[in-house]
Amino acid sequence: MRAALALARRGLGNAWPNPAVGCVLVKHGRVIGRGWTQPGGRPHAETEALRRAGSQARGATAYVTLEPCSHHGRTPPCCDALTAAGVARVVMAMRDPDPRVNGRGVNLLRDACILVEEGLLEAEARALNAGFFRRIEQGLPIVTLKLATTLDGRIATATGESRWITGPEARREAHAMRARHDAILVGSGTVLADDPDLTCRIPGMERVPMLRVVADARLRTPPTARLVNTARLAPTCIVTAPGHPPAAQAPFTSAGVELLTVPQSDAGLDLRTLMAALARRGVTRVLAEGGAGLAAGLLRAGLVDRLAWFHAPGVMGGDGHPATEGLRLAALAAMPRFRRVAVRPLGADMLTEFEPIAEVG
Amino acid sequence: MRAALALARRGLGNAWPNPAVGCVLVKHGRVIGRGWTQPGGRPHAETEALRRAGSQARGATAYVTLEPCSHHGRTPPCCDALTAAGVARVVMAMRDPDPRVNGRGVNLLRDACILVEEGLLEAEARALNAGFFRRIEQGLPIVTLKLATTLDGRIATATGESRWITGPEARREAHAMRARHDAILVGSGTVLADDPDLTCRIPGMERVPMLRVVADARLRTPPTARLVNTARLAPTCIVTAPGHPPAAQAPFTSAGVELLTVPQSDAGLDLRTLMAALARRGVTRVLAEGGAGLAAGLLRAGLVDRLAWFHAPGVMGGDGHPATEGLRLAALAAMPRFRRVAVRPLGADMLTEFEPIAEVG
Repeated sequence: MRAALALARRGLGNAWPNPAVGCVLVKHGRVIGRGWTQPGGRPHAETEALRRAGSQARGATAYVTLEPCSHHGRTPPCCDALTAAGVARVVMAMRDPDPRVNGRGVNLLRDACILVEEGLLEAEARALNAGFFRRIEQGLPIVTLKLATTLDGRIATATGESRWITGPEARREAHAMRARHDAILVGSGTVLADDPDLTCRIPGMERVPMLRVVADARLRTPPTARLVNTARLAPTCIVTAPGHPPAAQAPFTSAGVELLTVPQSDAGLDLRTLMAALARRGVTRVLAEGGAGLAAGLLRAGLVDRLAWFHAPGVMGGDGHPATEGLRLAALAAMPRFRRVAVRPLGADMLTEFEPIAEVG
Repeated sequence: MRAALALARRGLGNAWPNPAVGCVLVKHGRVIGRGWTQPGGRPHAETEALRRAGSQARGATAYVTLEPCSHHGRTPPCCDALTAAGVARVVMAMRDPDPRVNGRGVNLLRDACILVEEGLLEAEARALNAGFFRRIEQGLPIVTLKLATTLDGRIATATGESRWITGPEARREAHAMRARHDAILVGSGTVLADDPDLTCRIPGMERVPMLRVVADARLRTPPTARLVNTARLAPTCIVTAPGHPPAAQAPFTSAGVELLTVPQSDAGLDLRTLMAALARRGVTRVLAEGGAGLAAGLLRAGLVDRLAWFHAPGVMGGDGHPATEGLRLAALAAMPRFRRVAVRPLGADMLTEFEPIAEVG
C-alpha cells in the first residue's frame, strides 16, 4: 500500500478533477503491475496496472489507495475491469466519498466474489487526497498559501524591488509546488507588479494542466499581461466582481481567458465563493502565491489549509512591503496561529510548512 | 582541550572583562583538576584547576583554552602558579592577544622549562571568546541582535499587544541567552512599552553580573521604570545624548543608574561610539533585544555580529508593529544578508541564528 500511495502522489496536480490514485498488483509475492491516475484524471490507476499485468492479473491481489469506481464516467468502471481480469482480492485504503461510488464499488466487487479489505493506511490515503475529499464533502478545494519573504516578513523594498529575495533552490521548490497543485491563484496587484506566467519551469514537469487564476475584482489585469497572452497555451481564469461592461470583458474572453464572477464586499472579492467556484470547476488543490491583499483576505476568511513560508536570510526593514496587508486583529488572541509540520533548508533559505490551529473568527 | 572549551563556555557572560577560559589538568591519562574563569573574571581557570589538583599537579599536563597570563593584575600571574605547582607541559589553544600577555606567557613558561604547545582547537577557542578578542583588538564588543516575531516579522499588534508572541520554550531560551552575554541593550521605546527588568529568570542562573543598558538619546526612561528601581541590585546604565540638564539626570544617578553620553545624529545615538563605550567598561558580549528603532540602527551601522531570530507560528498582518524600523534601502542589493548557522525548534517556535555576510555600507 505504501508503494501504491507513492504512485498516487505522482498524480497530484495532474489528476484533477479526479482523485490521485495508485494501484499495485501483487501475485505470489511479486509485483506484476503498477499504475496511477494519468494526467487529466484518466486512465485510472487500476486500468493502468491491469494493462501492465496483462493475463497475469488472474488470481492477483490489487492494492489500491481508494475504492475502485463503480460508475460509468468518461471510462468504464474499474470494478468491472478488476472483475474481468480475474483479480482475487482487493485491499483498499479507504472508500471513495464521491456519492456515485461510496461503498458501491465494494459491493460490486464482493458480488463478483472478490475478497475486499478496507482501511489499510487510511489516514495517509486521506491526507494525500485531502483536496479531492474537501471538494466532494464541502465543495471547496484545499488552499496552500505560499509566501516568500525576508526574516522580517517583507516581499519587496520600499522602492518596489523584489527579484530575487530567495535563492535558486527555494525558487525551484516553489515551481515544484505549483506542479503539485491544480490551480495557482494570485491577486491582480501581483500581475501588475510582476507580470508572472505562473508556470512550472522545471525540466520534465513543464506540461502540467494547471489552471492559472487571478483574483481581480476591478478587472485591473492588463490585456497585454503574459497570463492573458498565453491563455490558449495554459488555461487561465480571471475571477472578478459582477457588472463589468462587455467591452471591458472582451479583450480577455477573446484571448481565451475564462471570466468568472463572484460577489464582493468592502473587503474585496468573496474568496469563499471564489474557492467554491473553482471546486465546481473540478479544482481540488489551490496554491495561492499572494500578493499581500490576497494573503490577508485568505487569512481573514480562514481559508488557509496549509501555509508554506520561505524565509530568506535578509532583513529589509519596516519600510519594505509587507507579505500580508493588515488583518485588523482586535487582540493578539485573534491572530491566525499555525502548527509547524515541516522544516526544510533550501540553500540559504528555509521553507517551513504549517497547518492552521484554528480559523480566524 | 574539548573538555577545557566546554568548561570555558560556563564563564560566558560571567567572566567579563576577562576572557572565559577553561583548564584541565591531566596526569597519567587521568583528569586531576578542572577549572574555569569564575564570576567577575577571577579566580582564573588555571588557579581553579591547580587548587583542585593539589600536590598531584607536579608533572601534569595543563590543557588551557588561552595563553596563561604573565602579568600581575588583580591576581598573580597564572604562569607563576603553573610553574610553582611543577606542571610539566602546557597545551594551549591560542595566544592571548591582550598586549599585557601576547606571547609573554609562553616565554615565561618556556623559561621555567615547561614544555609549551600551541594551536590545539584554536578556531573553536577563538570563536568562544570572540567578544573578548573583539574588545582587545577593535575596542568593540560583539553584538547579538535578538528578535522575536511572527512569521511576517511583527512584534506587536496594531493595538500594541505583544505578550506573548513566542511560547515558554522560546522565552526560556531568550533568558538563557541573556546569561551568556555581559550586557543587555534595549531602546527607550521598549522600556516605555514593556517596562522590562532584563534579568535572567532561569532558576540557578539568576545571579549573573549582567549590565543592563538603555539606549535613550532623549532620556525618555521614566524614573519609575523597573530598570531604574532595581539599579542597586543589578548594574544599570542609560546611554544618552549630551546636554541633558543636571535636574533631568539626577533621578537616575541618585537611583544608582550610570549615565553615559555619546554623540547623536539625525539617525539617533551613534551606536558605534556607544559600543566602544561599553567595551571600555569591559563589556565583551552585548545582547540587543530591540525595539524596532535600535534594531534598525544596529543593522544600518553594520554592528550586528550575530542575529538570533525567534519566529512564532502566527501571522499578524501588515498593520502589526514591525521588528525593525525602515532601513531606507536604496536597492535590494543593499539589504543586510546573513548566513544561517543554527536552527532550533523551541516548542511551537523556531530559533534561527545567523552571522552577517557583509556589513551594510
